[in-house]
Amino acid sequence: MNSSTEAQTFRAIDVIRKKRDGLELSSSDVQGLVTAYTKGEIPDYQVSAWLMAVVLRGMTRAETAVLTDAMLRSGEVLDLSALPARKVDKHSTGGVGDKTSLVLAPLAAAAGVAVPMISGRGLGHTGGTLDKLESIPGFNVNLSTADFRRVLETCGCAMIGQTAEIAPADRKLYALRDVTGTVESPYLICASIMSKKLAEGIDALVLDVKTGSGAFMKSQEDAEFLAQLMVETGERMSKRVAALITDMDQPLGNMVGNALEVVEVVDVLRGEGPSDLRELCVELAAWMLMLGGAATDLEAAKRKSADFISSGQAFDRFRQMVELQGGDPHVIDDPKRLPQAKRTSQIHSDKSGYLSAIQCEQVGTACVILGGGREKKEDSVDPSVGIVLHKKVGDQVAAGESIATIYYNSETRAQRARQLVEASCRISEEIPAKRPLVHKVIRHSLEKN
Amino acid sequence: MNSSTEAQTFRAIDVIRKKRDGLELSSSDVQGLVTAYTKGEIPDYQVSAWLMAVVLRGMTRAETAVLTDAMLRSGEVLDLSALPARKVDKHSTGGVGDKTSLVLAPLAAAAGVAVPMISGRGLGHTGGTLDKLESIPGFNVNLSTADFRRVLETCGCAMIGQTAEIAPADRKLYALRDVTGTVESPYLICASIMSKKLAEGIDALVLDVKTGSGAFMKSQEDAEFLAQLMVETGERMSKRVAALITDMDQPLGNMVGNALEVVEVVDVLRGEGPSDLRELCVELAAWMLMLGGAATDLEAAKRKSADFISSGQAFDRFRQMVELQGGDPHVIDDPKRLPQAKRTSQIHSDKSGYLSAIQCEQVGTACVILGGGREKKEDSVDPSVGIVLHKKVGDQVAAGESIATIYYNSETRAQRARQLVEASCRISEEIPAKRPLVHKVIRHSLEKN
Repeated sequence: MNSSTEAQTFRAIDVIRKKRDGLELSSSDVQGLVTAYTKGEIPDYQVSAWLMAVVLRGMTRAETAVLTDAMLRSGEVLDLSALPARKVDKHSTGGVGDKTSLVLAPLAAAAGVAVPMISGRGLGHTGGTLDKLESIPGFNVNLSTADFRRVLETCGCAMIGQTAEIAPADRKLYALRDVTGTVESPYLICASIMSKKLAEGIDALVLDVKTGSGAFMKSQEDAEFLAQLMVETGERMSKRVAALITDMDQPLGNMVGNALEVVEVVDVLRGEGPSDLRELCVELAAWMLMLGGAATDLEAAKRKSADFISSGQAFDRFRQMVELQGGDPHVIDDPKRLPQAKRTSQIHSDKSGYLSAIQCEQVGTACVILGGGREKKEDSVDPSVGIVLHKKVGDQVAAGESIATIYYNSETRAQRARQLVEASCRISEEIPAKRPLVHKVIRHSLEKN
Repeated sequence: MNSSTEAQTFRAIDVIRKKRDGLELSSSDVQGLVTAYTKGEIPDYQVSAWLMAVVLRGMTRAETAVLTDAMLRSGEVLDLSALPARKVDKHSTGGVGDKTSLVLAPLAAAAGVAVPMISGRGLGHTGGTLDKLESIPGFNVNLSTADFRRVLETCGCAMIGQTAEIAPADRKLYALRDVTGTVESPYLICASIMSKKLAEGIDALVLDVKTGSGAFMKSQEDAEFLAQLMVETGERMSKRVAALITDMDQPLGNMVGNALEVVEVVDVLRGEGPSDLRELCVELAAWMLMLGGAATDLEAAKRKSADFISSGQAFDRFRQMVELQGGDPHVIDDPKRLPQAKRTSQIHSDKSGYLSAIQCEQVGTACVILGGGREKKEDSVDPSVGIVLHKKVGDQVAAGESIATIYYNSETRAQRARQLVEASCRISEEIPAKRPLVHKVIRHSLEKN
């Protein structure tokens, strides 16, 4: 192995040793490593040793920003400066029933900011925006850069998947982290998220960092640490960033599953739907408008967001985007046209009381088991299946009452999913303490302007 | 990368995560990893991430013993049970001018223990036993296992290099550690040394752990930690092990360089040579005899060792081994027949006083620069070059007096080596504090029997 590494001018071994010994890496150390790795000039085995040293030694804010920047510049950075509106995106760290992106993009666009949104697929027990969009017949998430730009110019928002040109270093690093036990580092998570998002050519970013039983960051402390890190990294890269620590201790809204979640999106855009989802969409949209310069204070921004829903303009914008991206707009007018599961099954409460907890990750896993997510990367997704919860935490439940409906196409899958959903719901005699929807907002000096 | 690793029954990712999170690995975790890696069933990039986690998280004594055992069993373990004598070896962590192995093998063999010694080549600034032996014309360090056994049976000792069959896991792991910044872990160093040594089929092992400016472990604390670890690991594997923490703050003896060191070996075997080298050889041999059951107390063992030198039996045994391994025995009778450098050059002291320090690593590096060691793995070694020091730390030096002679074949190399040797020697007005030759002896309960 020596001869191949001795030939390289950039000495990966020195950077590995430096991080191993807890020293701060220079810009050229980090940039050199990312550039050489993306070009295939240094082997996986050196990078994985470095990644493990990062997981265990951590990174300074400066190192994290340099890593983010190097990953961002490893590929194409969209230049959307020709668009007059401020470009603002939202990113969520992933949850169960989290369909806010589908509401936010058209809502914020209707209110005057441009939303060039590049999203991902379901990961683990969490759903993915692309999978939800693809439950709309014809919807194309694989637009070329030129088509992406055209949709964005026409309706103010566009939603696609990651392209090969965006942050290739992240794709390569993420694949390596996935198989070397080096995913779980806030510094690496931050660089991965921020490099992809900033490659969209945005001016501002709202981060929805989830905490609770359905989030990747189960503790609020971990969620806040990651949020702070991402906000500071964005600031170092001269972007306006705010992070909301939001609750993911129960599914967001009532519906979990790809087509089911589109139904709920349409409900919210029509001014209906569950209140927690509606409120969070209004709050996140308000932050997008604030950072995008379309509102000056939060209350005004929230009123503006609510107005764009009640006026139907957000709905119209969603319908327009669906049509522009090849989707059937009649499905948005009549969500019954979305893919439908063949069978349903009720889950009844065996006692009376209050719904005191919904173990959120179990509900997400139940949806994956039904076919609504992937157990292996190669799996295809069944858009029609899912779970509709009829109760939220704190609601009163009578013995024998239905607390959830399972939408399924396979009996064996439904059996396993039922067990999980049943196990996830706890009924108690006392009214449980109410958790706030938004735990905390983290902004940095720069974003306060 | 996922698909190939998902197919394996042993899940390396779980073992990586466990070590990353500071949990103790089970026997099957460690054995599984070593076995799968040796067979090529898990990729380098997973093992390097695990190695970095070991460097930063450490290992328990139990994990270290299991790792040693798994590496040992990755290849052939010599069965020397047919030999009636106890099999005892000595291992040094490497130093400058450390030629004790060439004295100890024949000396201990003459005194009644069998010494099946498998040694290495020079590493960094330190010399290697094989390189020294090969300065004897004809000496073959690459014996087959059968020939190794035959020499051992005939004269009680044999000295060869590592074979492909001995601890292949160590060879593969060492090559990976070398390029991933994961060499510097006492646990991995312990497993590497002990797995190779115990594969020799020995009953007991004397460890010479060097400390000081010419050692890999510069601090005595680090040396003691490693020594303790190796002694405990040996005990867990039912071997008798003792470790001596010995001084390497100046070169051992006066001569540094392959053929020059053989000259000094012959001197010591004739009852001559520098007192520090003579004393250390007697002390280490005494421990070999103690652990090998050929002596019961240290003073008696030291007397016995000294007697086998003064009687000429140790010298005769060395001459016999050289002849059995294809070397020219007349060279041992008349060391002037060893390869000779073309030129010599004196280094004179520029002032009077006491030699207060010799920066030992610099002297070792000077010898490498002269051609006596390898800067790259592919380099060949010049047996004739080296440095002869005329003064030891504490000796009085007059201005203009020669403190060292450089033996060289290339003027440009000699220039660089001179500068290093000059820089390595410090002359002061006060007599320096004397460092002991043996700082400490570490034995464990089992070895006290």
